[in-house]
Amino acid sequence: MLNWTIREEGYEEQNAPSLGNRYLIGNGYMGIRGTLEEYEADKLPAVNLAGIYDRAGGWREPINLPNGCFSYLRVDAEIYKLPEKQPVSHGIELDYRYGIFRRHTTWHTARGNVTLTTERFASMAKVNLIGIRFRVTADFHADVELVTGIDCDVWDLNGPHLEEVSMGGQEEELLVTARTQEQKIPVAVAETVFASYPVEMKQVVKGNKILHRIFFITKPGEQYTTDKWVGVYTGKDCDNPAKEALELVRIKKENGYDSSLRAHKKCWDELWKHSEVIIKGDSNAMQAVNYSLYHLHSIAPRHTESLSIPARGLSGQTYKGAVFWDTEMFMLDFFLMTDPATARILMKYRIDTLEGALQKAAHYGYEGAFYAWESQEGGYDACTDYNVTDVFTGRPQRTYFKDKQVHISAAVVYGILRYVEWTGDESLLDTKGVKTIVECAKFYYSLLLHSLTKDYYEIRDVIGPDEYHERINNNGYTNRMAKFTLEKAAEVVKKAMADGKLPAEYDGEELLRRFQDGAEKLFLPKPSEDAAHRNVIEQFDGYFDMEDATLEEVRSRLLHEKEYWGGAYGVASHTQIIKQADVVTWLNLFSQEYDEEVLRANWAYYEPRTEHGSSLSAGMYAMLACKIGEPDRAYPFFLKSAMADLKGGGKEWAGLVYIGGTHPAAAGAAYMTVVEGFGGIRLENGKLVCKPSLPREIQGMQFRIFYRGQEYEVKIEGTKGTVTAL
Amino acid sequence: MLNWTIREEGYEEQNAPSLGNRYLIGNGYMGIRGTLEEYEADKLPAVNLAGIYDRAGGWREPINLPNGCFSYLRVDAEIYKLPEKQPVSHGIELDYRYGIFRRHTTWHTARGNVTLTTERFASMAKVNLIGIRFRVTADFHADVELVTGIDCDVWDLNGPHLEEVSMGGQEEELLVTARTQEQKIPVAVAETVFASYPVEMKQVVKGNKILHRIFFITKPGEQYTTDKWVGVYTGKDCDNPAKEALELVRIKKENGYDSSLRAHKKCWDELWKHSEVIIKGDSNAMQAVNYSLYHLHSIAPRHTESLSIPARGLSGQTYKGAVFWDTEMFMLDFFLMTDPATARILMKYRIDTLEGALQKAAHYGYEGAFYAWESQEGGYDACTDYNVTDVFTGRPQRTYFKDKQVHISAAVVYGILRYVEWTGDESLLDTKGVKTIVECAKFYYSLLLHSLTKDYYEIRDVIGPDEYHERINNNGYTNRMAKFTLEKAAEVVKKAMADGKLPAEYDGEELLRRFQDGAEKLFLPKPSEDAAHRNVIEQFDGYFDMEDATLEEVRSRLLHEKEYWGGAYGVASHTQIIKQADVVTWLNLFSQEYDEEVLRANWAYYEPRTEHGSSLSAGMYAMLACKIGEPDRAYPFFLKSAMADLKGGGKEWAGLVYIGGTHPAAAGAAYMTVVEGFGGIRLENGKLVCKPSLPREIQGMQFRIFYRGQEYEVKIEGTKGTVTAL
Repeated sequence: MLNWTIREEGYEEQNAPSLGNRYLIGNGYMGIRGTLEEYEADKLPAVNLAGIYDRAGGWREPINLPNGCFSYLRVDAEIYKLPEKQPVSHGIELDYRYGIFRRHTTWHTARGNVTLTTERFASMAKVNLIGIRFRVTADFHADVELVTGIDCDVWDLNGPHLEEVSMGGQEEELLVTARTQEQKIPVAVAETVFASYPVEMKQVVKGNKILHRIFFITKPGEQYTTDKWVGVYTGKDCDNPAKEALELVRIKKENGYDSSLRAHKKCWDELWKHSEVIIKGDSNAMQAVNYSLYHLHSIAPRHTESLSIPARGLSGQTYKGAVFWDTEMFMLDFFLMTDPATARILMKYRIDTLEGALQKAAHYGYEGAFYAWESQEGGYDACTDYNVTDVFTGRPQRTYFKDKQVHISAAVVYGILRYVEWTGDESLLDTKGVKTIVECAKFYYSLLLHSLTKDYYEIRDVIGPDEYHERINNNGYTNRMAKFTLEKAAEVVKKAMADGKLPAEYDGEELLRRFQDGAEKLFLPKPSEDAAHRNVIEQFDGYFDMEDATLEEVRSRLLHEKEYWGGAYGVASHTQIIKQADVVTWLNLFSQEYDEEVLRANWAYYEPRTEHGSSLSAGMYAMLACKIGEPDRAYPFFLKSAMADLKGGGKEWAGLVYIGGTHPAAAGAAYMTVVEGFGGIRLENGKLVCKPSLPREIQGMQFRIFYRGQEYEVKIEGTKGTVTAL
Repeated sequence: MLNWTIREEGYEEQNAPSLGNRYLIGNGYMGIRGTLEEYEADKLPAVNLAGIYDRAGGWREPINLPNGCFSYLRVDAEIYKLPEKQPVSHGIELDYRYGIFRRHTTWHTARGNVTLTTERFASMAKVNLIGIRFRVTADFHADVELVTGIDCDVWDLNGPHLEEVSMGGQEEELLVTARTQEQKIPVAVAETVFASYPVEMKQVVKGNKILHRIFFITKPGEQYTTDKWVGVYTGKDCDNPAKEALELVRIKKENGYDSSLRAHKKCWDELWKHSEVIIKGDSNAMQAVNYSLYHLHSIAPRHTESLSIPARGLSGQTYKGAVFWDTEMFMLDFFLMTDPATARILMKYRIDTLEGALQKAAHYGYEGAFYAWESQEGGYDACTDYNVTDVFTGRPQRTYFKDKQVHISAAVVYGILRYVEWTGDESLLDTKGVKTIVECAKFYYSLLLHSLTKDYYEIRDVIGPDEYHERINNNGYTNRMAKFTLEKAAEVVKKAMADGKLPAEYDGEELLRRFQDGAEKLFLPKPSEDAAHRNVIEQFDGYFDMEDATLEEVRSRLLHEKEYWGGAYGVASHTQIIKQADVVTWLNLFSQEYDEEVLRANWAYYEPRTEHGSSLSAGMYAMLACKIGEPDRAYPFFLKSAMADLKGGGKEWAGLVYIGGTHPAAAGAAYMTVVEGFGGIRLENGKLVCKPSLPREIQGMQFRIFYRGQEYEVKIEGTKGTVTAL
């Protein structure tokens, strides 16, 4: 049995940023970092909102709201806060079954010990609501003041994003209103408190904070419980965020804390009912996997009809809160199998942001739809031309993620069609859905180059998944995904023509001719026949000619621990060392097209040449290892994905910029490895089959999945898998 | 009247490298740097050979021979050398009418003053011969020892290149033999001396030197003359270099120094008869131009049938002694007009090195002939993939001069056809000549890319003349030159077919179809119609979108004086600042295709954006200024070209690597500006015309030129030019 809790006992100030990620709570509308209530901006607290972005000078990023959780204690007129006042004991915990963050801290005061415990949750039942409960005990007659309110001094990477910030008190509520700089979107944070014991209360404004001061005197050993409700609304939710926020906290206060918590927990129970993964014989793995799924649930945008998940979830402003191919290639399957409605929301986001992709393609002189590498609302590409800082010169370095990582549009098509295939729901393939697929195919068609002396088409000057090699020609992964897009678009066009549903603006015959011709003649590198690379597929033109140095050798060439391995002159750039799975990603997606010996040869060739510098890498190696019948080789890569946030250790700082956060794509990859890799869940001729292949650490597994509207119970014991319709 | 002499009085040790270039003598077979006789390797002396290369670990470079000029003085048993013994007076001079280097040095000794004067020449009459004359005078009875011989301690950038070095004395001669490391080519340096006064002589070997010790006692005021002959042969000249070298110095000694010098001067008189440029009213310019022509004459490979001129002449091993497009685009016209036989040798070199160009194209997966960016014997491309060292990391930086500067093949075709047009000599267009042109056109045809959604062809991922912008698409200059090649090749094929002379391996109709189609559909950027760039032609796709910072602003961003402006991240790379004339080079070659306002607009737009970081740049701006009737704006650029070596000031060191040398392309550009720019010599409908346009500094000019086998005298007075057949 899983205990569903992770704990951190003791206090180390420098761990605040990473604990902020590991102990994150959220409900898809907002993410609340696992920081202590008394923390101010320097400790990176955040109430991070989904799908609302702002530019304030630097790049566009999501906004963090004024922190409605801000609180601290005063005892006998002295302030007790971490890290300033060292505690006698301290700990935090996350109940990841229910998304509840807890802390307990005991301080020694001149007259005795005082203990503060808190718990908080971002309500799954009402996403605009945060619930907080404070408990204070002292072993003496302490003169206590619980200070709690809203801190408007917000941590930002590129802020401040809020202007016209107004702090005001109502009778019992505090209210902060503001609006975003760029689009003038109003936001409101309201809160109110309830003390179940006699108190004296005041409202004060102190600097950038508006606060309740709640005074009481403790009896030794007695517990004093104070509840708090924070309501959060923006102009994207409603017309009058301030009014809604105030109303929400008033009503919730009336209903009581327990009522809110009950409703919240009920939602989580429902989520876990469909998604919990039981792993026999490996409690570590079971914890890591379900903890990963917890993170995916916490950031799923169930509250909307059309939104996607940023690459760092709702853990902050890293990577501009933008949506990458991570959603389609790594997270989608989890939602398809446990929560298809959310999968639909994710895919609808792409269809709804087609306009941005059309504009981006046109900007670069292409036809069709070139999706954003870092997608914000409307498909705006938040990626900049300069993403890396040269550590030797301090200069921004031109990168090509935005303009040359063209495989993104194929990921969108892949995701939409996988949604349709897995759910059987064709409603996304309405006019706009068909257009999305057609426009992506038109984009690839316009990328095709025909050298007059060759009988095939090429795609040149791109970046593949392995970002360490820039401006390369005929990246196998990119070309295969382009071919996939062209082929699938031809099918979609054909069907739409047959159904009389092809948008009138298209010449169906001409589209068919182009897409079929493009798909047929597009160059794909083949498994090599030369002795040194037998069966290995060259990642791009000339890759095999690059220096074949070992990872250790290449690493030893670093002159600065933070220098970029890629770009034009990075230590990996002119070697065969790659950042992450590239050919292996391709073969994982299209494994049925190659003999097992080809899959094996590529895994064996590329793995030692992969730095795994991206959290996306390990999962692809794990999954392909399962497909070649090597679950034991898959296992460490699976564990790496599953532990990405639990263990941490990823890069948190790039120079002076915070780039830490959670890794939902790794979480999604861990899920896929368990269910599709070890569990062997797949479609064969449209039929769901289960052909397990467990690593030695795992004896059995049990989980549920949805397929085409039907839920199934999957039970695996050793090599035997049974799938039962529920 | 020109005095034909440059002088440097006084001694500054640190000037040795630059004076080595400025006072260079040579005869096309060898170059001898203008260094003092007593200098050893650290002062960069060199007897640099043409057309013979070696690899010894690093890159391939031309070899420097054991220095047969090595000599110094001992007086009263004390050694007198510079810089060790500071002189009372010292000076060097170059008689650039006759290619004679002279030095004079007076030292104060304990007993009085001693003066050494020397002169030396690399014989134009017999290119294997160096003649040297020493004169010693003292104002007291000095006990003098003149030490002279051969120093085998050779200055190399990437040496040593010679192995099995053997030093031996004959009765009166010293002989050094050795062979190159890579190709085992034997080389021999022999020398002998003759003293016209009673001496005692010894031969000694001292370290890496073999030396005569010539002892004599001076009478006050009397001059003691010693003559020396050095003979130089390699296995490329003859079967037995040692025997030939010894025989040569014996015979020359028998005939006497004056006889060798007379024959040498006679050759120079003949050269100047056809090439001297007389400029009225501007003796500075006249000196600079004729001094430039002196350098071109000194390095012209008249002794062979097929060889070309390295970019740094015969001044050392810089740029690997390799041949660049400099020959065709900058030096050729001088030889066409003053010495057509040498022009033929230069162009024959390209035809004879077709094999190397075919191999290079095949290596990169292209068809046809891709000429070497840095051509050595056989067309071997000495250019490396890493030409620049990152000053911040010390790492070699990947550059693309070799693989992407594809305009080189067009320069070859341009040169050959210009030779044919100007001389009327069609003998180069035999089978191999036709093949050369056809294969260059095939190369460009195989570079053409057809985007399936566009109705034209493109050439992508190249470097144009402006090397600061790498990996660009549709460089106007490159595309225009490719189009030129395709068009001209079609004409050549058509004619060869008509004459029944098309090589049998070719399908003439198919070649015609391809070349005509390629030429017709190849994209050429047009003069812009937008207001900000009216009439300006965009240098490559996207150039106008780059940051339009001023040269000063870009320069101010340098963090290190030696950092590279180009590459992926150089200060110029993502701005509109360019290294050298690019569009302006194109418009200069094809000025008849554009209205004068277009030429003007481009000159005016690009000049302030040009760093002129290459000595090739100024000349193109000078010539285009003449074509738009602005000789006064041309004048400073002309002077910059003409003074490139006379004034020096170019970069001599890149980090620890010596990159100094002479600048024959700038010399050629100065000539072209005088004759074709100011002088207005051009062809109009196949007729030679002279339409002068003199800058205010110049009142008149007089020079001779060859055209189609006939020599003409050109006299220009103000705006009037007369051309008289001789």
